[in-house]
Amino acid sequence: MKKTYLFTPGPTQIPPDVVLAEASPMIHHRTSEFSDIFANVSEDLKYIFQTNDGEVFTFASSGTGGMEACVVNSLSRGDKAVVVRGGKFGERWAQLCETFGVTVVSVDVENGKAVDPDVLNDTIQREKEVKAVFATLSETSTGVVHNIEAIAKVVKGHNLLLVVDAISGIGVHPLMMDAWGIDIAVTGSQKGCMLPPGLAFVCVAKSAWGAIEKSDLPKYYWNFKKMQKALSNRTTAYTPAISLIMAAGKALAMIREEGIENVWSRHAKLANATREGVKALGLELFAGDASGNVLTSVKAPEGVNIDAGIKKLRDETGVTITGGQDELKGKIFRIGHMGYVNEFDIVLAISAVEKILYENGYKMELGKGVSRVQEILVG
Amino acid sequence: MKKTYLFTPGPTQIPPDVVLAEASPMIHHRTSEFSDIFANVSEDLKYIFQTNDGEVFTFASSGTGGMEACVVNSLSRGDKAVVVRGGKFGERWAQLCETFGVTVVSVDVENGKAVDPDVLNDTIQREKEVKAVFATLSETSTGVVHNIEAIAKVVKGHNLLLVVDAISGIGVHPLMMDAWGIDIAVTGSQKGCMLPPGLAFVCVAKSAWGAIEKSDLPKYYWNFKKMQKALSNRTTAYTPAISLIMAAGKALAMIREEGIENVWSRHAKLANATREGVKALGLELFAGDASGNVLTSVKAPEGVNIDAGIKKLRDETGVTITGGQDELKGKIFRIGHMGYVNEFDIVLAISAVEKILYENGYKMELGKGVSRVQEILVG
Repeated sequence: MKKTYLFTPGPTQIPPDVVLAEASPMIHHRTSEFSDIFANVSEDLKYIFQTNDGEVFTFASSGTGGMEACVVNSLSRGDKAVVVRGGKFGERWAQLCETFGVTVVSVDVENGKAVDPDVLNDTIQREKEVKAVFATLSETSTGVVHNIEAIAKVVKGHNLLLVVDAISGIGVHPLMMDAWGIDIAVTGSQKGCMLPPGLAFVCVAKSAWGAIEKSDLPKYYWNFKKMQKALSNRTTAYTPAISLIMAAGKALAMIREEGIENVWSRHAKLANATREGVKALGLELFAGDASGNVLTSVKAPEGVNIDAGIKKLRDETGVTITGGQDELKGKIFRIGHMGYVNEFDIVLAISAVEKILYENGYKMELGKGVSRVQEILVG
Repeated sequence: MKKTYLFTPGPTQIPPDVVLAEASPMIHHRTSEFSDIFANVSEDLKYIFQTNDGEVFTFASSGTGGMEACVVNSLSRGDKAVVVRGGKFGERWAQLCETFGVTVVSVDVENGKAVDPDVLNDTIQREKEVKAVFATLSETSTGVVHNIEAIAKVVKGHNLLLVVDAISGIGVHPLMMDAWGIDIAVTGSQKGCMLPPGLAFVCVAKSAWGAIEKSDLPKYYWNFKKMQKALSNRTTAYTPAISLIMAAGKALAMIREEGIENVWSRHAKLANATREGVKALGLELFAGDASGNVLTSVKAPEGVNIDAGIKKLRDETGVTITGGQDELKGKIFRIGHMGYVNEFDIVLAISAVEKILYENGYKMELGKGVSRVQEILVG
């Protein structure tokens, strides 16, 4: 008997009521019934992004598609963009810009570190005619959370466009579109929003429309203007992923009911307990002080084949944590704790980590991790 | 009390077992468990497209995104393409090509008619250096089905690339990738595949790869090469819409179990009964002899506000048929009968059409439509 528990940095666990909403009878999307649901979802998304003046467009797409939408709507061929590159997903901004003929200036950040806003500032000052800065709230590949508020101050100081990949960060860490002056931000459904993957949500502030009007990159499916027109008619430009949007109606209402501030502080508490739990086992955080509340990335101890251990755990018990990607493969493991996660989930996750390590000959005192979690969360 | 029945040309009704599969516990997509499901789905899709040599790529996207993928992967800036334009969706091919700097030569076909292959042939002969022909299997806006086999003969005679929008046609009408020599075809999940919207399936024949290698249009999310590499590793390039793919595992297995030839003949029988049913009520088919088996488009009788009648029916009973789009608004209504539809559904649909017309003062003998359907399907 296996019980499925996802501690992956997306997809995340789906609340049963959200699954039920997803399984509702299919409805046609050009009806008032759908429009009522969609209008509510679009309003709740504004709350998640903390914007009054902005709009949120819902694409049937992975998060990467939403990132592509950000690039092709805001820039023109030959424009220069500064990209904060601190891992696989920062790198994705750079690849996207280059694909569409945008010149990229990278601010390279060591894996596991957060960007220094002063270095970003210096880069912008040194370069001529930068149009936009692309940043990442939570770098899923390393577990680092960047200080978007500080980045926004720098970018706004130069009057540039700020585009933020908030895919794995939103609903976990504060992201204040209006208060911080972010122009465009994107997230995917399968992270803090507690939904299956398949939707990309792109929040566009009023301040972004000047750049959007000027943009000459080719776009059809991703066209913000068509999406804005459709949204004003309470629908999408092309056939929406109806079952996922019905699920979103429930999931976002749950976040609104809990209150976004409470959601943030719940994640802070659970992430802290996770970090303390792994440290109690003698392990070291990969991202140190830059560790975010989305996932905890941990250095794999010497002599432990972590990926084999993760696979065995999943196959035998149904509990899923993940290893490192690309150059971090085999070097780290990652415990996702975003979305539909509570204190008992953290006990379970750390218990599973203990099991992997113990079975792989890592010298440790069994129970020390879960005890530390108990002290923090119950004590 | 309302009971939901969708007779819309997408989304279509979802079989309960498919809903259950969609509601399965969420799993991580970088696991053998997901890869096993995805590999089966990809094989079943090859069967649906009737290809041995081709590959089918699954995008988290609406059908329109899949169409964009076809354009940006197969053409280069300044290429010339011939587009068969016989309605809203033929027009979409033209818009997509133009958006990406492809020169479009249109073969305009009157709404409600199918393209004449000889006219297509003449157009290709007259134009110089055409690279590709874009066609539509089932033009959802008018109910017309084009003769793709005849179109393919013409296009192959000139050794050009043939790209087919089979979004609402596949799983209803035969589409033989290999036998007819189609290079690229696309469909969406929410039509004959009996799934919720949110997936685009793009079938790429071996013959298409020469053009794909040469294509210089910018692409990232839609990149076929990345999807091919991912497929060879039994996964997708970016996070897949996992719950929809789990649903696809069930829905496509149902089609395979019924047998695609049986699925085609079921649709032919049900569509014929629908056409005869509406004709028995004194109504006229909008697409005449070109009417396909995907949906039946019917001229709205004089003096009947068909869109108001459709809305009242939906609001009061939960039965949904659709009106016309754009310039056909108010002039036609459309009864979808694709996917999870059997003979009793057709009786129900014609009964609902009778109700709308009767309540709107159309002179008719109640029961004449459903009687005719009974004669055909039971007799």
